[in-house]
Amino acid sequence: MDSEQANFQTHVPLSKYSKRVILKTIFDRSNEELVGERVVVGGWVKSSIEVRKDPLPQPPPPPVAAARAGPKDVSCVEILQTRIPFFRSIMKVLGGAHNPICKELESVIQKLPPPPSIAILQVSDGSCVSSLQVLVDSSIVSPSQVMPTGTCILVEGILRQPELQGKHAIELKVEKIMHVGMVVQDKYPLSKKRLPLDMLRDSSHFRPRTTTVASVTRIRDALTQATHIFFMNNGFLYVQMPIITTMDWEGFSDKFQVTTLLGKETKKEQVTMDNAEGISLETVRASIREKSKQVEELKRTESNREALAAVIQDLRKTNELLIQLEARENSQLETSVGTEMVNFSKDFFPRKTYLTVSGRLHLESYACALGNVYSFGPRFRAQKSESKKHVAEMWMVELEMAFSQLEDAMNCADDFLKFVSKWVLENCSEDLKFLSKRVDHTIVDRLLLMTSMPFQRISYAEALEVLKQVKDKKFETKIDSGVFLTEEHESFLVDEIYKKPVIIHSYPKELKPFHVRLNDDGKTVAAFDIIVPNAGKLIRASQNEERLNMLTTRIKELGLPKEQYEWYLDLRRHGTVVHSGFSLVFDLLVANATGLIDVRDVIPFPRSHGKANN
Amino acid sequence: MDSEQANFQTHVPLSKYSKRVILKTIFDRSNEELVGERVVVGGWVKSSIEVRKDPLPQPPPPPVAAARAGPKDVSCVEILQTRIPFFRSIMKVLGGAHNPICKELESVIQKLPPPPSIAILQVSDGSCVSSLQVLVDSSIVSPSQVMPTGTCILVEGILRQPELQGKHAIELKVEKIMHVGMVVQDKYPLSKKRLPLDMLRDSSHFRPRTTTVASVTRIRDALTQATHIFFMNNGFLYVQMPIITTMDWEGFSDKFQVTTLLGKETKKEQVTMDNAEGISLETVRASIREKSKQVEELKRTESNREALAAVIQDLRKTNELLIQLEARENSQLETSVGTEMVNFSKDFFPRKTYLTVSGRLHLESYACALGNVYSFGPRFRAQKSESKKHVAEMWMVELEMAFSQLEDAMNCADDFLKFVSKWVLENCSEDLKFLSKRVDHTIVDRLLLMTSMPFQRISYAEALEVLKQVKDKKFETKIDSGVFLTEEHESFLVDEIYKKPVIIHSYPKELKPFHVRLNDDGKTVAAFDIIVPNAGKLIRASQNEERLNMLTTRIKELGLPKEQYEWYLDLRRHGTVVHSGFSLVFDLLVANATGLIDVRDVIPFPRSHGKANN
Repeated sequence: MDSEQANFQTHVPLSKYSKRVILKTIFDRSNEELVGERVVVGGWVKSSIEVRKDPLPQPPPPPVAAARAGPKDVSCVEILQTRIPFFRSIMKVLGGAHNPICKELESVIQKLPPPPSIAILQVSDGSCVSSLQVLVDSSIVSPSQVMPTGTCILVEGILRQPELQGKHAIELKVEKIMHVGMVVQDKYPLSKKRLPLDMLRDSSHFRPRTTTVASVTRIRDALTQATHIFFMNNGFLYVQMPIITTMDWEGFSDKFQVTTLLGKETKKEQVTMDNAEGISLETVRASIREKSKQVEELKRTESNREALAAVIQDLRKTNELLIQLEARENSQLETSVGTEMVNFSKDFFPRKTYLTVSGRLHLESYACALGNVYSFGPRFRAQKSESKKHVAEMWMVELEMAFSQLEDAMNCADDFLKFVSKWVLENCSEDLKFLSKRVDHTIVDRLLLMTSMPFQRISYAEALEVLKQVKDKKFETKIDSGVFLTEEHESFLVDEIYKKPVIIHSYPKELKPFHVRLNDDGKTVAAFDIIVPNAGKLIRASQNEERLNMLTTRIKELGLPKEQYEWYLDLRRHGTVVHSGFSLVFDLLVANATGLIDVRDVIPFPRSHGKANN
Repeated sequence: MDSEQANFQTHVPLSKYSKRVILKTIFDRSNEELVGERVVVGGWVKSSIEVRKDPLPQPPPPPVAAARAGPKDVSCVEILQTRIPFFRSIMKVLGGAHNPICKELESVIQKLPPPPSIAILQVSDGSCVSSLQVLVDSSIVSPSQVMPTGTCILVEGILRQPELQGKHAIELKVEKIMHVGMVVQDKYPLSKKRLPLDMLRDSSHFRPRTTTVASVTRIRDALTQATHIFFMNNGFLYVQMPIITTMDWEGFSDKFQVTTLLGKETKKEQVTMDNAEGISLETVRASIREKSKQVEELKRTESNREALAAVIQDLRKTNELLIQLEARENSQLETSVGTEMVNFSKDFFPRKTYLTVSGRLHLESYACALGNVYSFGPRFRAQKSESKKHVAEMWMVELEMAFSQLEDAMNCADDFLKFVSKWVLENCSEDLKFLSKRVDHTIVDRLLLMTSMPFQRISYAEALEVLKQVKDKKFETKIDSGVFLTEEHESFLVDEIYKKPVIIHSYPKELKPFHVRLNDDGKTVAAFDIIVPNAGKLIRASQNEERLNMLTTRIKELGLPKEQYEWYLDLRRHGTVVHSGFSLVFDLLVANATGLIDVRDVIPFPRSHGKANN
């Protein structure tokens, strides 16, 4: 491939790691620059037509050749070809394939060379919505090979102005075919016609080849880049939060568990504890406390590093012993699968592990040292849900800011949404134009609304009041103090009443998790949600409780297992700080920008090739 | 807090979402700009000393006040205070607390106001390595409250030149304390002294407060930003690959399974199949094939959309029925936990799901539509390993390029590593300086090496030859044709022989997965690894097989379940394209730039607060 491609210069820049010209770079240029340029382009056929070439007028035969049959043959062929339909109808009359005459005729027809034609292909390489008009003469390759939708071609040719003025300003006249990836026509799910997106979910490996999903992917990419740029510009540090965690997250009951036990014959032998026999957990824990003190002491006093190292080594050994013992203890603490008990001390991790539902609590320990931090990664909820806005696996943007209060988080969220919306408007205009036509004509207005207007800020109580006033609408869930606002309530506030994004703050503490900071009224907490048109609840934010006593009280009130949150309480015991943050459902941000209402349509592989994430 | 902070102007810019000045912005400025500025700063105390204030000379008492005892008292207090150690030693002699006289003396001492002093704090806010020298007069707050390492403070004060010239060019004289987050001293694991990183893994929620882990986090952040910028500049689209997948990945045997069954009482009732009774899987599959053909047909012919919609609706119903039936079939296909059988049709997903080990195959279906794409996310291997370079959960950068061959991937990988290394050198000089001093003095040279030299490119066969020549070293695994190169082999090539990054290509097909493209020799495959000093194997790359027949042959050869790869084969059946790509272990990239050899030290929460990821 190299040699073939490298042997000419072009003024249109080549894609750095594949010796071809990206179509977008062609459309970004003026025709003056392009016409006459020799380029290599690659892509997939979106649609095609074949146009018959008028036979070229035959030059008068040179006297010597006059006797030869050449020219005559040609014109004869020409005549025969024009008669093919006629012959075929005769054959039908004569009783088709069974009739020997027909067989003869058929074989004659088959021997005829196909009439010269030009295949006109619309080719896309995914770099933009527009596709390039590519002309291939039947003398170079048989049209039937390159014309089917989905065919992959890599071709070399000359850019030129189209002979007949159509919607295309430029087209490529092919001179060399370098690669053809054919299509098994009747088996290829994507035809020229539009296929409904939900059908496509069943052949998700072909989805990116549709103009819609390609546009969604480019917008999703733009939103990702904008996200990182926003936080980089504002001095946030990016931190990846753990996906596998031992946090049980009371209050989020629907978790996925991670294990290597299923399908394995778990051997029944005891955990080997050579040096642990007869030692109780408490003894070991005590001795660890003791040794830790020693270490601290040695470090405080100007003792030599060897002594210190020795004690630390010793401490580490004891720690390992403790883990072993705890593992054995866990083996009493077993759970059931069906009726059988599962011994987690035999699992990959010596205790139950889950897929994280949120990284915010973990993120706090970074905010409590580095100031402003954010995370961007997958989060998981094992929640069978009817909502089109939820799947088991979703990507979230989470951030935490030290020395910040709820209002700071509000301003940050507001700025963030304005920044990314502006970014998409400026960088994805072609995709937005396409999606407006194909999916939802209001997306541009909606994005403009985001960038321009200040969001409506109301308290939960105010929201209730406003909704109570509504007479001409019956909500499925009746409005009552302390009630969870449903998708129905929220979208009514956003779409019907305020007609712009709404920030609802000061929720009753009962409606928010234990870690949200209690307001001075003792009833509401420092949290807010941002609801936007179409996508709904995009952001959940809170100023988390920095006061140790308040936090422990909340944990008690809710009857949560305190020991599980000791590490979290530690952050309050030692150098606690006022801090706030939020988490944003990135997939809904994409849904909002693309106008797609079912989040599965904006997620790559919504079912992971096996009706999974559904 | 707001009101307190908002009531003055500063020329040093405020952090946008927390009304304080980030320390980095102070150190980035010249003293001329700073001296005399009133600023609010927040952070955590790294170390501190208390200096005794010389008592100020008393003004001559005004005649009226002469009689008063004030001044006398003061000097008396002064005298007493200077005698405290003396008193204490007496008390010891007298038998300490049990002796009533001592009790009396003690109470006298206690009543004495503490001597006036200044607490000199080194405060860090995580924005950079350097900490700010902060002076707090004991008249503002008791030194004992703010001095312990780890204390969080938010203070307002005036920037000034230090009175005594030390290493600090600027210091802050505090005038107002706005927040103090105290520390329970003997319980706080981080003392002034250095704690070995592996000890820190046990209190990972405090790790970010150490200068080392903070530097690692800033470098990790820089590498992340550089990664996205490199791919953005080179026209790659970012795509998030699914984490939960049904791909069984034969050849990677150690997978984590995802389930909601454990700990649940799985109810034994039948899957409800109202309209499915008596219908066989085959019948349904057949009718789906039939209906799909109808849809295709209707779309081909110019039929009305209503008819089409109806058939599609019908087809969808039949699809759902199929899923139900398959689920029921799966319930025969059960696996064992211990001795009990697990019925996956009762699980959240109707079939076995795993945590992804690699996103590259999925990424191909995007490359085969959009050209150049990359992914960046967590990948999982349930592999108990002694290697310091492996944990169960690691972040990977994966990319795939259409119309690209192996050499293009080599150039891309080379450029990528040069770009990100240069980026870190230019943007993290202070952190590199610190880590060079504290961890590994060779990191800067190593990064420079990366940016300057072309990498050594050798074939697997050449690598074997070179290693066979080695006489003065005994390898644990003997060098023999077809042998896997071990970490020991690879690091010897890189550190001892070539002394720079090495690209090893053209491996025997037996050493690489089924999807790698077979070379013309029929023995080796189009794959390469990049091994770098310290971090070891950073990149695995391959040009994957685009030829359908070759791919199916390989799948047969290896006895893999073909049906599982049908979707992957589809990409070859329909518009196949030459393509190549690689995956990079991001955590090792960080290890390489920071000089830390145990990858657990560069990963946030290596044990997820529960000895998990270990």
